[in-house]
Amino acid sequence: MAVTMGDVAGIGPEIIAQLFRSPKASSGCLVMGDVAVMRRAASITGGLLAVMAVQDPAQLANVPPRCIPVWQVPGLPMDLLEVPWSQVDARAGLAAARCIEAAVQGIHAGWCTAIVTAPIHKKALSAAGIQWPGHTEMLQALASPTNTKPPVRMLLVNPELRVVLVTVHLALREAIAALTTENILQTLRITHQSAARWGQSHPRIAVAGLNPHASEDGLFGDEEQKLIAPAIVIAQTEGINVQGPFAPDTVFMRARHTANHPGEFDVVIAMTHDHGLIPIKYLGVEHGVNVTLGLPFVRTSPDHGTAFDMAGQGRADAASLMAAVRLAREWVTRDAR
Amino acid sequence: MAVTMGDVAGIGPEIIAQLFRSPKASSGCLVMGDVAVMRRAASITGGLLAVMAVQDPAQLANVPPRCIPVWQVPGLPMDLLEVPWSQVDARAGLAAARCIEAAVQGIHAGWCTAIVTAPIHKKALSAAGIQWPGHTEMLQALASPTNTKPPVRMLLVNPELRVVLVTVHLALREAIAALTTENILQTLRITHQSAARWGQSHPRIAVAGLNPHASEDGLFGDEEQKLIAPAIVIAQTEGINVQGPFAPDTVFMRARHTANHPGEFDVVIAMTHDHGLIPIKYLGVEHGVNVTLGLPFVRTSPDHGTAFDMAGQGRADAASLMAAVRLAREWVTRDAR
Repeated sequence: MAVTMGDVAGIGPEIIAQLFRSPKASSGCLVMGDVAVMRRAASITGGLLAVMAVQDPAQLANVPPRCIPVWQVPGLPMDLLEVPWSQVDARAGLAAARCIEAAVQGIHAGWCTAIVTAPIHKKALSAAGIQWPGHTEMLQALASPTNTKPPVRMLLVNPELRVVLVTVHLALREAIAALTTENILQTLRITHQSAARWGQSHPRIAVAGLNPHASEDGLFGDEEQKLIAPAIVIAQTEGINVQGPFAPDTVFMRARHTANHPGEFDVVIAMTHDHGLIPIKYLGVEHGVNVTLGLPFVRTSPDHGTAFDMAGQGRADAASLMAAVRLAREWVTRDAR
Repeated sequence: MAVTMGDVAGIGPEIIAQLFRSPKASSGCLVMGDVAVMRRAASITGGLLAVMAVQDPAQLANVPPRCIPVWQVPGLPMDLLEVPWSQVDARAGLAAARCIEAAVQGIHAGWCTAIVTAPIHKKALSAAGIQWPGHTEMLQALASPTNTKPPVRMLLVNPELRVVLVTVHLALREAIAALTTENILQTLRITHQSAARWGQSHPRIAVAGLNPHASEDGLFGDEEQKLIAPAIVIAQTEGINVQGPFAPDTVFMRARHTANHPGEFDVVIAMTHDHGLIPIKYLGVEHGVNVTLGLPFVRTSPDHGTAFDMAGQGRADAASLMAAVRLAREWVTRDAR
């Protein structure tokens, strides 16, 4: 599994170093990054970790415990250690993009089975002149050698809840305008197909409405009747186990799965970024994992950003990255069966 | 404190009967309703409760424990016991409205200090030809003998979180259109002024943005810059302790208050119904209370509806109603000091 270094001005390198303090948690991971940056990250985390440059995936087997294997990505800026902490920097953006490209090359070459991405900064990527706004678009474009970009959706997972988003980084006004029966249906199909990766062939899918009380029969808005319900009906005729649209304010509570409260649904489809992310993050971001569904390979990432407010201080929490690696490992293992 | 009976086809009467099974929880409460309906509710809950018609508030002191004191509201339909369970019925809607009117009369007469409302059904209210769509509008109109309706806002409270909503029952599209600097500012003022009722003179108020990541400096939408930030600046010059706008997906997590995780804020202002209600309800509706801020009296209600799916079965959970009564009692007691 390739772990990309992320933005060097943020917490990416240091949480990766944290990950490697646990041989079990980091088992099978290879860092796509810069050896010097990862040496500094290892010293920041105070973990007495070694860093080893790896030129050939076969060498991975020989890496001793508590040593960080780093694939020195070609074409990185020479002065990455001079990038100031916690600032948007084109060099950091360029390096982040190169690491992602290298990971996808590893997928295409066949020695890499999954990509776990440390956080990047969208403005740094843009400052470096990278044409894609973020990870998802970049992976989508690089995933397929032809020009047919696979449709993707964001899945958020924590130990209690799975949520798939129909729209992501759009102004709320534009997100509403972007909803169509077609993209809701596509979200349902991608979710249904992807569920095999978490071990379910017929997941119980709930669809959250857009409006308060899911519009209460058209009393507050009509997207439920005009767009969402028709998508659900079509999906049901395709054999997808889906219900809704449900009131957004209670469907996540109903799907929440704990020892005392078995969830009524296996995954909830949310129309907007914050309808889905508010419940996912409410109990804390430590265990949240972000997964891109629809790519021809497994891709996970932690559920937080570059955290410029604490970068370089060695106090960033690697829990979400560790959860992302764990989830990627589970999914890859299931694929291999 | 007046407890209004709610819609007789729903769970209102039976959860009120549940409340009276605990002398402590129901202390000081008088039901505004119908004696026969409450007798039936008492028998449904199986609690061996008596029901006593009260004609004068002074009689309340003589009501024995485990007896439900009912103020027989004048002008109720005669055949309320014939209203079928779990259906919209004009008679139930009319009765619900009369009970609310009687409670407000009690406030105006001075013998009632707070109103706790059991759930009503908006369609039954409408079927009865009542001109107001729900509790809030009705109380707002009845509260002031003149025609100046006080501006009100909905506060949701549970043991971990307080949320005040800028917009409520509007289609999401219309809620966005309804946002103005003026109504956000008014929400901040009402919240700040009301906090004395929960014991804080300078509550730490956080404002949630509208768009993903609170628009990330205008990247996804401009309401944060154009509408929300100006309201915050004006409120700050008025001495209100308010910060934001913050990303909607993390501000509720940050405000969440538990023994292990002291909240960073005392109350969060949400732009839309579901941004605010999703985190309030995520851990369960049992302890949630709905409060109307801005009225000249204390008004609370449980955080659920008429629950037609379980009405008349004696299995409805009265926890939220009990929490609503407890909160009203706390606020009234603080007012009286």
